[in-house]
Amino acid sequence: MKDRAMYNSDGDFLLVPQQGELLITTEMGKLQVRPREICVIQQGIRFSVEVTGPSRGYILEVWGNHFVLPGLGPIGANGLANPRDFLTPVAWYEDRDLSAESAGYEIISKYQGALFVAKQHHSPFDVVAWHGNYAPYKYDLANFVVVNSVSVDHMDPSIFTVLTCPGAKAGTALCDFVIFPPRWGVAEKTFRPPYYHRNCMSEFMGLIYGNYEAKEEGFLPGGATLHSMMTPHGPDADCFEKASTAELAPQRVAAGTMSFMFESSLSLAVTAWANRICQRLDANYYKCWQGLKKNFTGPKTASSGGK
Amino acid sequence: MKDRAMYNSDGDFLLVPQQGELLITTEMGKLQVRPREICVIQQGIRFSVEVTGPSRGYILEVWGNHFVLPGLGPIGANGLANPRDFLTPVAWYEDRDLSAESAGYEIISKYQGALFVAKQHHSPFDVVAWHGNYAPYKYDLANFVVVNSVSVDHMDPSIFTVLTCPGAKAGTALCDFVIFPPRWGVAEKTFRPPYYHRNCMSEFMGLIYGNYEAKEEGFLPGGATLHSMMTPHGPDADCFEKASTAELAPQRVAAGTMSFMFESSLSLAVTAWANRICQRLDANYYKCWQGLKKNFTGPKTASSGGK
Amino acid sequence: MKDRAMYNSDGDFLLVPQQGELLITTEMGKLQVRPREICVIQQGIRFSVEVTGPSRGYILEVWGNHFVLPGLGPIGANGLANPRDFLTPVAWYEDRDLSAESAGYEIISKYQGALFVAKQHHSPFDVVAWHGNYAPYKYDLANFVVVNSVSVDHMDPSIFTVLTCPGAKAGTALCDFVIFPPRWGVAEKTFRPPYYHRNCMSEFMGLIYGNYEAKEEGFLPGGATLHSMMTPHGPDADCFEKASTAELAPQRVAAGTMSFMFESSLSLAVTAWANRICQRLDANYYKCWQGLKKNFTGPKTASSGGK
Amino acid sequence: MKDRAMYNSDGDFLLVPQQGELLITTEMGKLQVRPREICVIQQGIRFSVEVTGPSRGYILEVWGNHFVLPGLGPIGANGLANPRDFLTPVAWYEDRDLSAESAGYEIISKYQGALFVAKQHHSPFDVVAWHGNYAPYKYDLANFVVVNSVSVDHMDPSIFTVLTCPGAKAGTALCDFVIFPPRWGVAEKTFRPPYYHRNCMSEFMGLIYGNYEAKEEGFLPGGATLHSMMTPHGPDADCFEKASTAELAPQRVAAGTMSFMFESSLSLAVTAWANRICQRLDANYYKCWQGLKKNFTGPKTASSGGK
Amino acid sequence: MKDRAMYNSDGDFLLVPQQGELLITTEMGKLQVRPREICVIQQGIRFSVEVTGPSRGYILEVWGNHFVLPGLGPIGANGLANPRDFLTPVAWYEDRDLSAESAGYEIISKYQGALFVAKQHHSPFDVVAWHGNYAPYKYDLANFVVVNSVSVDHMDPSIFTVLTCPGAKAGTALCDFVIFPPRWGVAEKTFRPPYYHRNCMSEFMGLIYGNYEAKEEGFLPGGATLHSMMTPHGPDADCFEKASTAELAPQRVAAGTMSFMFESSLSLAVTAWANRICQRLDANYYKCWQGLKKNFTGPKTASSGGK
Amino acid sequence: MKDRAMYNSDGDFLLVPQQGELLITTEMGKLQVRPREICVIQQGIRFSVEVTGPSRGYILEVWGNHFVLPGLGPIGANGLANPRDFLTPVAWYEDRDLSAESAGYEIISKYQGALFVAKQHHSPFDVVAWHGNYAPYKYDLANFVVVNSVSVDHMDPSIFTVLTCPGAKAGTALCDFVIFPPRWGVAEKTFRPPYYHRNCMSEFMGLIYGNYEAKEEGFLPGGATLHSMMTPHGPDADCFEKASTAELAPQRVAAGTMSFMFESSLSLAVTAWANRICQRLDANYYKCWQGLKKNFTGPKTASSGGK
Repeated sequence: MKDRAMYNSDGDFLLVPQQGELLITTEMGKLQVRPREICVIQQGIRFSVEVTGPSRGYILEVWGNHFVLPGLGPIGANGLANPRDFLTPVAWYEDRDLSAESAGYEIISKYQGALFVAKQHHSPFDVVAWHGNYAPYKYDLANFVVVNSVSVDHMDPSIFTVLTCPGAKAGTALCDFVIFPPRWGVAEKTFRPPYYHRNCMSEFMGLIYGNYEAKEEGFLPGGATLHSMMTPHGPDADCFEKASTAELAPQRVAAGTMSFMFESSLSLAVTAWANRICQRLDANYYKCWQGLKKNFTGPKTASSGGK
Repeated sequence: MKDRAMYNSDGDFLLVPQQGELLITTEMGKLQVRPREICVIQQGIRFSVEVTGPSRGYILEVWGNHFVLPGLGPIGANGLANPRDFLTPVAWYEDRDLSAESAGYEIISKYQGALFVAKQHHSPFDVVAWHGNYAPYKYDLANFVVVNSVSVDHMDPSIFTVLTCPGAKAGTALCDFVIFPPRWGVAEKTFRPPYYHRNCMSEFMGLIYGNYEAKEEGFLPGGATLHSMMTPHGPDADCFEKASTAELAPQRVAAGTMSFMFESSLSLAVTAWANRICQRLDANYYKCWQGLKKNFTGPKTASSGGK
Repeated sequence: MKDRAMYNSDGDFLLVPQQGELLITTEMGKLQVRPREICVIQQGIRFSVEVTGPSRGYILEVWGNHFVLPGLGPIGANGLANPRDFLTPVAWYEDRDLSAESAGYEIISKYQGALFVAKQHHSPFDVVAWHGNYAPYKYDLANFVVVNSVSVDHMDPSIFTVLTCPGAKAGTALCDFVIFPPRWGVAEKTFRPPYYHRNCMSEFMGLIYGNYEAKEEGFLPGGATLHSMMTPHGPDADCFEKASTAELAPQRVAAGTMSFMFESSLSLAVTAWANRICQRLDANYYKCWQGLKKNFTGPKTASSGGK
Repeated sequence: MKDRAMYNSDGDFLLVPQQGELLITTEMGKLQVRPREICVIQQGIRFSVEVTGPSRGYILEVWGNHFVLPGLGPIGANGLANPRDFLTPVAWYEDRDLSAESAGYEIISKYQGALFVAKQHHSPFDVVAWHGNYAPYKYDLANFVVVNSVSVDHMDPSIFTVLTCPGAKAGTALCDFVIFPPRWGVAEKTFRPPYYHRNCMSEFMGLIYGNYEAKEEGFLPGGATLHSMMTPHGPDADCFEKASTAELAPQRVAAGTMSFMFESSLSLAVTAWANRICQRLDANYYKCWQGLKKNFTGPKTASSGGK
Repeated sequence: MKDRAMYNSDGDFLLVPQQGELLITTEMGKLQVRPREICVIQQGIRFSVEVTGPSRGYILEVWGNHFVLPGLGPIGANGLANPRDFLTPVAWYEDRDLSAESAGYEIISKYQGALFVAKQHHSPFDVVAWHGNYAPYKYDLANFVVVNSVSVDHMDPSIFTVLTCPGAKAGTALCDFVIFPPRWGVAEKTFRPPYYHRNCMSEFMGLIYGNYEAKEEGFLPGGATLHSMMTPHGPDADCFEKASTAELAPQRVAAGTMSFMFESSLSLAVTAWANRICQRLDANYYKCWQGLKKNFTGPKTASSGGK
Repeated sequence: MKDRAMYNSDGDFLLVPQQGELLITTEMGKLQVRPREICVIQQGIRFSVEVTGPSRGYILEVWGNHFVLPGLGPIGANGLANPRDFLTPVAWYEDRDLSAESAGYEIISKYQGALFVAKQHHSPFDVVAWHGNYAPYKYDLANFVVVNSVSVDHMDPSIFTVLTCPGAKAGTALCDFVIFPPRWGVAEKTFRPPYYHRNCMSEFMGLIYGNYEAKEEGFLPGGATLHSMMTPHGPDADCFEKASTAELAPQRVAAGTMSFMFESSLSLAVTAWANRICQRLDANYYKCWQGLKKNFTGPKTASSGGK
């Protein structure tokens, strides 16, 4: 993006680099974002990105609200993502005169879903100082304080929420950004991997590095899965077998891996590009559950009795 | 309490039996409450308690609001105390005519802090059936799903909240009922026992059985400690030494013990009876911290520098 | 109150005249308040009252909030007390010079529960015009649109709320002002008079004229009953007998009578004056329930069985 | 729906059977729903419906929120639809192996407005037990406690709300489900049938059995009327004449009939199918008001004078 | 609009006449609205407008909520637009019989964005009296109490809010109606004209009379500018030069002029009519900023240093 | 306070030094607070104060809540006291061993209104570093951005709110801290000094330096006035005369002075010390209003006519 900057007039970007470091220049200063770090650039902020070598990752766009930390409730004043671990840039500027050059500086605006270009003879990164709290930030996912059951039972994945972009209805999110980081698994009398479920959220998952605990094969770093609203899903057959017979001793879970989820109360549409042009759909995905066997040994039919 | 029942016109009772089983008859039916179980009897409900053998415990009274489950926030839909584990009585009644007896049935009301007695010729436990949700309940503390850090850092004790009686200011409690149950301790890079602190709540602690993890000696089942608002406190010297050098492997914490806390945003006054008549104040309590040694090795004085 | 005015620095007054018309002069103008009308004079407003002949009534004082109409919920936009039936005064003033008179004008302030007197040489009713919505008002109880069951079952007395002074806890009231006005009784399959109950509110009842439907004898106009928090009460034995055998045809209820209730979530204390000096306590009040007979014919004892 | 089940990924269904009993199997158990009963099946719950003989009714779909009971406000703790009258199923399951059959079991999902089909070799009704409060339920409209004016004036139809699905703006509903059940009419000094009005809600009415009180002819059971936002409407000419001259004695209203309304703050679009293919539009509907005569006898024009 | 009336079933109209007086007849009475006055006619209210001579102005339509006065916060009980300056009509009616005329009375409804026509034989303005608070109103912008800095710094334009139509997200507006009225400018140590900015609102500006303070040329009464969400804008070069060198003595600002803004949290689309058919786009608008010169004299590039 | 520190277990302190600079050491670091600056030290924070020379000022204590900035409403994102002008200390510590000294270090706690003393052998100011937002802060009142009418009318004093400590009832304050700083007075068609009023707040005023604009004589720096709830007050006779005849040109107001108000929704009690022991009550205070003359020239009495 030499002599070119972008801003999003419609909403905010959440960047999740998966391969290659991003050198991001914004009006508030510079951010260096490596895989395992995430970055939020809000509506209207001009930015330019440099990469060196191959680069790949995930981008989420939200409209109508901003990401905030979830209210912690009984978790108290510390835990999950701590405010002090989010880093905003130090002010930086350049005073460049491009009026002699034919091209000048290109500013690209995403507005109402389309891209518009304007030209100017100076760099947009000419902000000498700033104050306020409307600024891009980055966060290293390794700083997440993981909380979970330390006795019995299985927590909802909301316990892994890093950031949430609240919806108009209290308690729902336009999008939660959720991670599955390295942690101790000590819950007893339960099935420890993600449970089988269907729910009222759309779940878009990605893998930054390593192997995802509930599907160790076929889900590669840089790949993605989408489990739409009310579509049932859960661990593959291998994971089910292993976890069903494992001894429930304290165990390091998800060591050496980092997967994440964009979890939205909205229904996600898949674009034409993703459906048709991109030739990477995994036609065999459903087979990972084919090996699951019926283990039920009760009577053929029964009521649970009068209530 | 033969032919005698009580009700509290001022507020609700939270009963924490520590020794001896309680057989409680209420207008809604009977409750059998053993140590490790707790029981709430609300304002206005008539009840009678029978015990067999020595009996001892703790009673908390709250005015102006009722106990509810804490909002779980990111913990999600399950965890801590689950609603389905709270048990209300099945309707039970007796149709007794005591008009021939001189004494009759005594009903004692606690009203505006005083006790009033009324007599009647029939049992108050003559409620044949009932519906609604204003009913006494009990809960077995062994059902608590303990949640805590499974990576690093130290959670606030609010993570152990069983029930909360909210105050008028959002986020504060007239009283939280908090427990320290058996669980796994796996937090790394931290001091695992309760940290040294002073805070804006009054902390009244009791011990139901076993040894409290942060003060293994001198704090006996049936005893109580009170750390008033803003009075600093923390583990005793022994606990500090042990925990400071312990290897941070996964470890069963508080096995075989159950302590609890009444934690209030109000300042608690000690009654004349507790101060003067009851001869059990532990004059040596403060000594448990006397053995703590200074471990600081930095320079005598320094600022952390310009911000 | 010739050349004398009062104001309440502590809270608001709700006046319920029972005998004799009140001619009230306030800074905003004059109010003529007859029995069956009520009047609210807010904190700080200076007023003077004239009566002709015997005068008697009820006064309620509330602190920390003002009376408002209850939110109607499903009742919709009309019903109970309609806003347009509350009347505020038309501006009125007098320009009097009392500096020649030794006495002058006395202004009495109720402040922190005590009375203070100041003198001045002019009338306080010298307000030529005013705007805003902080003004005294009156309401004729005959304008109340009575709502109730028109099929089965028995409504809570909150359905008769004229005005409510909300408390700090949502859904509770420092005081509800409730009336029992003439209306149709058509509810079927139920006991139509007030049911037997005890509750979390203090109920102070008065009678403006006629006979109260649940106690036709011994409760006189100008009298009052107080059923404190959690003290059980209900219709007298006569009322119970009559209502238990009456045919449930549509019936005019409370015709020719008007009783009311100050219903508070606070516990009311009876003053020394009311307890000792005033010699009008009805020592036989409790006897109105003595005639109630046991009608139960079921087995002596039983549980309702497993839930 | 033999060997076939459906679920709605987009929202919740409210079923109002008008003819024929529904035997509904859901994952939580079985529901038998007869005309005069209604049933709610929420997003994601798989269900199968059996009918015997002709069957007809109304279905409403809501997105983004669930039905709840309206807050009752001054109506208090009882009245309208009582929570205890909503019935959820008792757990029931079947353990069927259809892998030998070519067809298998068909699962139909409504997702983003389209229908998707999946096949499986076992019954989806294999849930042995369940807990929680996300479950289908039914309600018999005969249990509705009807509340209305028992003195003067005319209540808004919100007083007949059975269930409401709240919108994002407080006080508005995506949809209220409202009924006009048998009841006593005792309001005096008023016109008792529904008043003439236009309003900010869309009103879709249906008739389950009997005759609707405000249009006794031409509105048949199984039929429907739609009065769109701000379109004025009211009783037909016959009803107006009768009600204008009737003596206002207590009267049984709507005996032997049950009509209902889906009342939405959203503007409803009529589908192409309803407009074009279905040949049952009542082209003479507007004529029911043609007979209304002008009764005004005042001057030709006048201002109401100074305010 | 002889014998013709309109109503909007979709939302509310805010009228800002710029040239020519409007004589508006509504169901609640008549409103005379001159330039510098504004008028709101809500959803569903029938109205008819007469003009004499040339007439021009601005109309805003809002859906899903109504205009209210902004909460004043620390400004207190008075200031900005005072409630008492909003005028509603006095009831007026006409009793006309047009059944002899072929045309009759035409009622036009705007519904779901389309126009529908109905005919009737009488005037819709036959409302003899009314009560309630759902009524059209007008406001003279000269009554606005302008508030601003009286020491240093530059207030946000929200300080000029006359009316706001709140959005679903607290603190945002579907539309604020904002004016720039005559006032004193006394702020010191600042640039007094509107600052250069881009923001999360769409700004549609109009000019009723006079010259807009930040663009004295080329912005004519009856014209409009649109600065879309996140598009940067500010005073023209002339204004910048003048204001940068002006002495900051107390000064009458915007004397003899009245401009306004529709400021929306929604992104505005320009219609085909505005883009293509209307030949009045100002192709030179951007040039008003071309004369702005770089005044920066610092080093070419620098960070503000460690934080 | 050599080797002595204090903390308040009951609430927060707001310090307003009037004479002499305060050198405050807290656990979070050091604060230098000069007259015209204010300082807040919260519940539980240990601090020690050093003064050089005569020292005098005002202290306010609040219970149950903390001071926050008022919500600005239409004032927008800047104005009144800006967050960035509140300064918190940089971490500072000392590592002192006083165990050889007999006295040691004294820690005084204010708890339940009494003072308690504890001794320890080390300095309490041994906090090497800290994070979080519970920290003492200071603010220079000269940074206040004064906002007021720039056209007509008179703002409420809430427009001068620096900090507010909210009460349980929305919109009320346990205490507002309000100042009357130097500013421009440009309001036209009004009386510019504080108006005559009585209100529902207690007003405690102090003067830091200069002359208070509404009472230039007899109100000295370091003095205080208390106008209790609903006690009328306003400018003295001199101020009234001058302001009533002054030309309303732009004018510098309150130049060279700084007065403030503690304005509470609670009723303040004067202590015995203030009433009896302190011999500085101004017995002539009321005389400042004695010179006010009647200027009314209308008829002796009149109603404003029918409404």
